[in-house]
Amino acid sequence: MSAQAKIKKEKEIIAEYETQVKEIRNQLVEQFRCLEQQSESRLQLLQDLQDFFRRKAELQLEYSRGLDKLAERYSAKIRTSREHQQFKKDQNLLSTVNCWYLVLNQTRRESRDHATLSDIYNNNIIVRLAHVGEDVIRLFKKSKDLGVQMHEELVKVTNELYTVMKTYHMYHTESLSSESKLKEAEKQEEKHMGKANDAGLLRHVHEDRPTRRSSVKKMEKMKEKRQAKYSENKLKCTKARNDYLLNLAATNALVAKYYIHDISDLIDCCDLGFHASLARTMRTFLSAEYSLETSRHEGLDLLEGAVDAMDVRGDKLKVMDMHSQIFCPPARFGYQPHMGDEVCQVSAQQPVQTELLMRHHQLQSRLATLKIENEEVRKTLDATMQTLQDMLTVEDFDVSEAFQHSQSTESVKSASSDSSMSKANVAKRRANQQETEGFYFTKYKEYLNGSNLIVKLQAKHDLLKQTLGEGERPDYGTTRSPFTPLNPLRARRFRPSALRCKMFNGNMETLIQGEKECSSQEPGDRAGHTCGGGELREIHQPVRSAAAGNLPCSRIPRRSQ
Amino acid sequence: MSAQAKIKKEKEIIAEYETQVKEIRNQLVEQFRCLEQQSESRLQLLQDLQDFFRRKAELQLEYSRGLDKLAERYSAKIRTSREHQQFKKDQNLLSTVNCWYLVLNQTRRESRDHATLSDIYNNNIIVRLAHVGEDVIRLFKKSKDLGVQMHEELVKVTNELYTVMKTYHMYHTESLSSESKLKEAEKQEEKHMGKANDAGLLRHVHEDRPTRRSSVKKMEKMKEKRQAKYSENKLKCTKARNDYLLNLAATNALVAKYYIHDISDLIDCCDLGFHASLARTMRTFLSAEYSLETSRHEGLDLLEGAVDAMDVRGDKLKVMDMHSQIFCPPARFGYQPHMGDEVCQVSAQQPVQTELLMRHHQLQSRLATLKIENEEVRKTLDATMQTLQDMLTVEDFDVSEAFQHSQSTESVKSASSDSSMSKANVAKRRANQQETEGFYFTKYKEYLNGSNLIVKLQAKHDLLKQTLGEGERPDYGTTRSPFTPLNPLRARRFRPSALRCKMFNGNMETLIQGEKECSSQEPGDRAGHTCGGGELREIHQPVRSAAAGNLPCSRIPRRSQ
Repeated sequence: MSAQAKIKKEKEIIAEYETQVKEIRNQLVEQFRCLEQQSESRLQLLQDLQDFFRRKAELQLEYSRGLDKLAERYSAKIRTSREHQQFKKDQNLLSTVNCWYLVLNQTRRESRDHATLSDIYNNNIIVRLAHVGEDVIRLFKKSKDLGVQMHEELVKVTNELYTVMKTYHMYHTESLSSESKLKEAEKQEEKHMGKANDAGLLRHVHEDRPTRRSSVKKMEKMKEKRQAKYSENKLKCTKARNDYLLNLAATNALVAKYYIHDISDLIDCCDLGFHASLARTMRTFLSAEYSLETSRHEGLDLLEGAVDAMDVRGDKLKVMDMHSQIFCPPARFGYQPHMGDEVCQVSAQQPVQTELLMRHHQLQSRLATLKIENEEVRKTLDATMQTLQDMLTVEDFDVSEAFQHSQSTESVKSASSDSSMSKANVAKRRANQQETEGFYFTKYKEYLNGSNLIVKLQAKHDLLKQTLGEGERPDYGTTRSPFTPLNPLRARRFRPSALRCKMFNGNMETLIQGEKECSSQEPGDRAGHTCGGGELREIHQPVRSAAAGNLPCSRIPRRSQ
Repeated sequence: MSAQAKIKKEKEIIAEYETQVKEIRNQLVEQFRCLEQQSESRLQLLQDLQDFFRRKAELQLEYSRGLDKLAERYSAKIRTSREHQQFKKDQNLLSTVNCWYLVLNQTRRESRDHATLSDIYNNNIIVRLAHVGEDVIRLFKKSKDLGVQMHEELVKVTNELYTVMKTYHMYHTESLSSESKLKEAEKQEEKHMGKANDAGLLRHVHEDRPTRRSSVKKMEKMKEKRQAKYSENKLKCTKARNDYLLNLAATNALVAKYYIHDISDLIDCCDLGFHASLARTMRTFLSAEYSLETSRHEGLDLLEGAVDAMDVRGDKLKVMDMHSQIFCPPARFGYQPHMGDEVCQVSAQQPVQTELLMRHHQLQSRLATLKIENEEVRKTLDATMQTLQDMLTVEDFDVSEAFQHSQSTESVKSASSDSSMSKANVAKRRANQQETEGFYFTKYKEYLNGSNLIVKLQAKHDLLKQTLGEGERPDYGTTRSPFTPLNPLRARRFRPSALRCKMFNGNMETLIQGEKECSSQEPGDRAGHTCGGGELREIHQPVRSAAAGNLPCSRIPRRSQ
């Protein structure tokens, strides 16, 4: 025995072993407790989720009902309105009213979608969560059964190890005892042999004493017996030790296997499908939310399309079309010869000729001056209109900033705190706009007076010119306008739309026909009455330019996707 | 005078003219009425929109509050939970719990966004609509002023035309009358001259009667006077007719201008900015809605990321890490020599050598058979697990169909009517799943028994082999496993995560260090105690394969954008 090695006694070893086994058993108990806790946490999580989705479903349904009620309130109002009936009949919905209808449609769509969401929460997500919960409970039970089997095996092997260790201890004790007995016998023999040697010296004195020989023999026999016993016990001890060592290896291997593989497998059994099923539930939720978003987006795109299609010119023509009898130009005033007066043209015979000539020249120069002046006014008007349009189409509608989420849970940014919508700013902009607008109206009146005068003088001038020069007959009304008409700007900005003049229950063709007939008849003839429609059409039908048609508001910048 | 031309008298002409002017005036009145109606319709539309957005803002706020309350209910619960504190401290949130937190975050985000929406409705959109309304009223008034000016001009020229026409009639009447007087005079002269001729014949009878000569002179004088009067009146009439004709042309030109340009301009003045301002309001609404959608989408993407990152293996390691003292393998049972027994290895001296050799051979053949049998069981297990995984990851979560909108206003499709979520289908699938699961557990128990036996026998076999062959010392625990461990499948499926074993307050480095020390020490040494951490780490740390880490659920098909 080395000096360093501490000689351990049986009791000590057993106590140590039992402590170690007890520690393992405590771990096993704790492992079960941990698995149970894990399952309980999951059930709690599932319970919370079910509860959450049940309440959220209620919220969605409430919201859906609110939206539906809201949409229905205005839809009902629209259905009963006389105007709507008329528009519907004519398929002539104004572009602005169309936007309002689409806002209501979008509200109804949202209402339906949130109801669908509520339904999916209740009849799909919650059902799935309930199933996941059942699975967690069932798998925990089954896994625990497995764990019990694992633990039983561990208990079995540690018990076995205990047994073989005790056996080893027993045989080693016996081996030690028989060894010491053997040593004692050997010592006695040595002692006896020592005496015998002393006695050998004495044999010369007292030779051949039989009693002495038999005791030696007896002693040898005992030694042999003890030697045999020792060998036997040593062998038993060796076998027991071998058994102990082999069982020790087996036990350690099994314990290691349990800790390294089995407990992990046991947890896997508990986990079986939990993540996958929960993920599928979450994906159902995501699918529903994404689908709602897609639907919302589609609706908003429809509305955006309608906003893009808002058409001031088209709406104007629709309104004029609907009230064609109000806006259709009347018959021109015809020349009515009095009491059979046969002269029906301006007479330029002497003595009035000179006067007419003078008048014609005066008109000519007056018109030249007036036209220059009025053209200046028109330019100012156009510039003012451009300024107004710029104000009216300023792109101040992007509110996306209000929806930026910083990670901090700061309160909602107020839209009114936004600089572009601050009261001071808005007031300033509106005052500016109204000032420009006022200037526009002032200038417009000036222009109107000028152009009215021009148009009258021009008519007279043309008639005189024709009379004096005996040129071609003046073609009233269809001549090129003597003044530049307003709004080439606006005409370029908005969408064209045909105006069908319905006067005299006529249609486009008959009106155009009428116009032709008119131009081949006497200027004073009543047939000229129908010209109005043609003229109206010719002027109100704006240029179909490629760049035309849209309000210059650009679309809202959207997130890139 | 031609026979066809109807001879119109003054009264007739005036009556006709007045009718025509009256018709025009009626049109003008109707035009104003139409503009007024148009403005009223717009004001009504704006009023409806304001009313609508006010109510919708209330709805949004209500919904926002509901969502906030809902999120807060569970957030408060989480904050107070002991578990949460621990996770938070460790930064070791389970992936499933993380999803739940993100669901709550998303709810809070929606709550904030709907509150923002409500704010934008109230403080931006409604304000804008009110301004548009003010503009409509103001512009209608200004336009009406303009219109009045236009109408006055029309009244003025028609009155003027009336005047010049009356003048023409008057002069024409006078012209006619003086003409007839002239003719009468001529007739009388002719008569007189006829008499004179007769008298000439008589002059031979009674020559030179001075009374007759003076009457002829008188008659000629009268004729001259009448001729002069007639010429004067005819000139006056010509001038009046010319004036009438010129005014007629001017009036017709002005009326045409009004109907073709001015009324259209007047409507444009009324419309000024209405479409643009309403469009900007609508675009503000769209910007808000699109921004809400973007925010929602971002939140959902975060949640989807968390669902994608759900990690059964990572969560297992986190739980084991948190309870490292429970799952850390215990110290191996060491060989305890009894009472200073110096032998500490299996003894293979004769006479046990033969017996050990025989035992070694028996173990060898027994193990070979067992391993083949157990490998078969393992294959069945793997196949069963694959079947289960396929069931658990079936892609049955797409609910987008429920959000398809047909144009008809059909009621919401029930999610429960969906074939994949029908009760019969679900029940069938669940029964199937549980049956497979039951089979898996049965097979697993079989496999567990087999592998337990193998591991024990293998440990004994290895020790014997080493003893008999005097080969290298067996390296308990860290040797290659004698059985194929389960779940290469699962190991491939999930994300790796380091497991830090904290036993003895140690960290990774000291544990690895401990492991190294351990392997250089006596197998029975207590220092081996710390090996546990290292072993645990080595085994539970799965292969970091590129394909690994995700649940095989594919993402939901999204709309293309």
